[in-house]
Amino acid sequence: MYKDATVAEINDVMEKAWKAFHQFRKLSLKQRAGLMRAIATGLENAPDELIHTAMRETNLPEARLRNEKGRTVFQLTSYADACEKGEWLEISIDTANAERTPPKPDIRKMLVPLGPVVVFGASNFPFAYSTAGGDTATALAAGCPVIVKAHPAHAGTSEFVAGIINEAVKKLNLPDGTFTHVHGAAFEVGKALVTHPYTKAVGFTGSYLGGKALFDWANERKEPIPVFAEMGSINPVWLMPGKMEQSAADIAKMYAGSITLGVGQFCTNPGLLIGIEGEALQTFINTLGEEIKKIAPGTMLHPGIAKAYGENKAKALSQQEVATVAESATAPAANQGVPAIASATGQAFLNNPVLHQEVFGPYSIVIRCADLAEMLQVAEKIEGQLTATMMATEQDILDNEALVDAVKNICGRFILNSVPTGVEVALSMQHGGPFPATTDSRFTSVGADGIKRFARPVSFQGWPDSLLPEELKSSNPLGIWRTVNNEMTKNAL
Amino acid sequence: MYKDATVAEINDVMEKAWKAFHQFRKLSLKQRAGLMRAIATGLENAPDELIHTAMRETNLPEARLRNEKGRTVFQLTSYADACEKGEWLEISIDTANAERTPPKPDIRKMLVPLGPVVVFGASNFPFAYSTAGGDTATALAAGCPVIVKAHPAHAGTSEFVAGIINEAVKKLNLPDGTFTHVHGAAFEVGKALVTHPYTKAVGFTGSYLGGKALFDWANERKEPIPVFAEMGSINPVWLMPGKMEQSAADIAKMYAGSITLGVGQFCTNPGLLIGIEGEALQTFINTLGEEIKKIAPGTMLHPGIAKAYGENKAKALSQQEVATVAESATAPAANQGVPAIASATGQAFLNNPVLHQEVFGPYSIVIRCADLAEMLQVAEKIEGQLTATMMATEQDILDNEALVDAVKNICGRFILNSVPTGVEVALSMQHGGPFPATTDSRFTSVGADGIKRFARPVSFQGWPDSLLPEELKSSNPLGIWRTVNNEMTKNAL
Repeated sequence: MYKDATVAEINDVMEKAWKAFHQFRKLSLKQRAGLMRAIATGLENAPDELIHTAMRETNLPEARLRNEKGRTVFQLTSYADACEKGEWLEISIDTANAERTPPKPDIRKMLVPLGPVVVFGASNFPFAYSTAGGDTATALAAGCPVIVKAHPAHAGTSEFVAGIINEAVKKLNLPDGTFTHVHGAAFEVGKALVTHPYTKAVGFTGSYLGGKALFDWANERKEPIPVFAEMGSINPVWLMPGKMEQSAADIAKMYAGSITLGVGQFCTNPGLLIGIEGEALQTFINTLGEEIKKIAPGTMLHPGIAKAYGENKAKALSQQEVATVAESATAPAANQGVPAIASATGQAFLNNPVLHQEVFGPYSIVIRCADLAEMLQVAEKIEGQLTATMMATEQDILDNEALVDAVKNICGRFILNSVPTGVEVALSMQHGGPFPATTDSRFTSVGADGIKRFARPVSFQGWPDSLLPEELKSSNPLGIWRTVNNEMTKNAL
Repeated sequence: MYKDATVAEINDVMEKAWKAFHQFRKLSLKQRAGLMRAIATGLENAPDELIHTAMRETNLPEARLRNEKGRTVFQLTSYADACEKGEWLEISIDTANAERTPPKPDIRKMLVPLGPVVVFGASNFPFAYSTAGGDTATALAAGCPVIVKAHPAHAGTSEFVAGIINEAVKKLNLPDGTFTHVHGAAFEVGKALVTHPYTKAVGFTGSYLGGKALFDWANERKEPIPVFAEMGSINPVWLMPGKMEQSAADIAKMYAGSITLGVGQFCTNPGLLIGIEGEALQTFINTLGEEIKKIAPGTMLHPGIAKAYGENKAKALSQQEVATVAESATAPAANQGVPAIASATGQAFLNNPVLHQEVFGPYSIVIRCADLAEMLQVAEKIEGQLTATMMATEQDILDNEALVDAVKNICGRFILNSVPTGVEVALSMQHGGPFPATTDSRFTSVGADGIKRFARPVSFQGWPDSLLPEELKSSNPLGIWRTVNNEMTKNAL
């Protein structure tokens, strides 16, 4: 339906973005925030056709999509607030001292935008992590023009949202090239965008194979650029003995919901549940199995994802050491994902890397460890994760320091006694984790700190106040928190 | 003299560092700062033999080495202060709200250490950017064990300083493996260190070829890791017409000093001076030439660097479009670098990439642009730089917005009316710049913000106060500036 962008078109787009960058980066924080709020308003006021297009393209239910649209609006407006407050600029100022030998110069540091950012949207979040999603919002806040490559599975939704963004850009008289939208089902489009010399950073949410390809292309460039790829996770959960003793069945019920939420199509879906052999774990497995049987299959985002889920689940279940605990009792329609729970021993997990692989969909495997020592071994063997969860009493935590430390070391978000699904949009959120969960564990893709991905520090040395950017002027006209001579303050110098 | 570490030895070292990491990362900020201060004290009290060893190995004069040792002590102690203050932890807290639908969890974010860090010291800074230098200090502050590969050109100095660090580690009863020191003249040692699975980050100061090799090895790993390589710079200087009108000769004298300081062996050495053809530029060139003739050659760090300087200078001077302006009038002794100034037109610079290459030593080339438009073209064509300098009146800056913006866009530190040599150790310092100046423009290798290179954020969701790290507890026992519900505060919750 939509034609892939040609190499010539991509060159044009990048030339335009580069030219726009020269003006866009000089907008005040207020002006950038203004653009973000205008996009939010456009989204809020969009006709129902937008939701209907998304429903048709993604099979996601209306309520979920309306919620997700609301989340996207909240992201845009809350990141706009953060953009304007300017704390993300990490300003520090050291004043001159002419008496010192040698004289100490005046130095003032703040973040400046990297340049045009290419954003690849997520199949599972047509609004919140796609065209006007978190990557776009934070890149604009940082002062970077954005080029979105539409996800081919919801290209119409993407086109619709791009129209809203373009309208906001136009209404505010911002430079042509501040935002561009291209289509590309073929990987060559993505490659051309990532390897273009005017591209200065990349945001991506999707599969390991996709994210890793972008990362490698970016690093092979003459000028390597940062790639922020969020590539999925199995989000391990440690079921600690004290807690299990108290409430194995309740935990199982809670997790049956989390595993199957949204047909399991969340990057924070709990795909690995680690317990210790025994009565409590058996209760947990039995209850979880009973619950899963009751949960009907759901239609997945698109036929490709439904097919991959079926194949990956079959591969996992076919491993010699893996037993099927339960599947949904309801027969699936076409393109539906059937909830399923498997189990295997700790030794099987330690020895078979297939069990570490994400099965994107309503699937989870229970690992039955022999003891706490094996639980620790599992923690030390697991690759980097977006989240890790402890279901534990306070005593469980205090008694297992080495395990708690090992689990903390592999994740970006460390949860106690809850489920990993549900990613709060807040400054304190870390959505990112050690490789292979993401390509750069030092940054988050959710929350206003995501702005920092697309900026770098510049120190101004010896500039008079009149020539400094507003953010660095002695009077602090924008009222930003700044570190002045090593003290945090909002005061003027 | 020193034997290269074998692969087996490197494996042992990394095992030890990994084991030490489990304990070291849990030290309080105060304890980490204590180690840094103990190293500083050890350095301060080191016998003169240390300075004499460094003099013998590097040919640097005694006063310079004593100064550099003082700088190293200041780095360690000022980064220790910053470590303890904890602002670098970038703490943010969002408190729970049970009334919201869905209920909002309590989330608290802080930086945690990445893991063992491999540090490659710089040939030109045997103290400040080597064994106990900036990378080591900031990695320890972050909570990471450090493995230093000694620079073969000053392996004895490195061994000496390593002894001081080991003594401090022992005295404070810190885990074996907190710090290790290995030798390696062959590149295989560096490769084995960078590709070891327990290595989680790399710090490097040196050549483009060396840094790029480490970067590529790190990205080809199964688990890619960050490499902070500072790979040199030609530190362009724009000689703006208004300023030149006023003081071309004075600027020339100031720059003759900067170009030849320390036999030109600084990564911030100004290797490119860009002016506009005319009387003022001719005065500048004449004066700079006269000054350079008066400056005697100096002994370089080691024969390899002296040889490379001779060759690179000869290559630059042999380019068809390049004229030699002046060389030192004094004949050099063995291994000495002869100060030299060249010149070429703006067109020559735009068309010949050889003129963009760093000539590490007391050399600089004056680019004679036809006009301001060509000056802008030069700015747009230059690769990423650690620093860029404008010699300009306020009017020059106001009249040339596009040029000023373009120059700012290629550098990490943007200097007005001074010289780039002299890198202040301060929080506001950005020592880093767009590729190829460094491999990651988002971080600095000088100043306490360098700590952030070796840490990543983790969010704690739903943890009771009693189980949270001190840094995140509601009472704020460490008195750290934190963002609580989007407001910066030192208050308890």
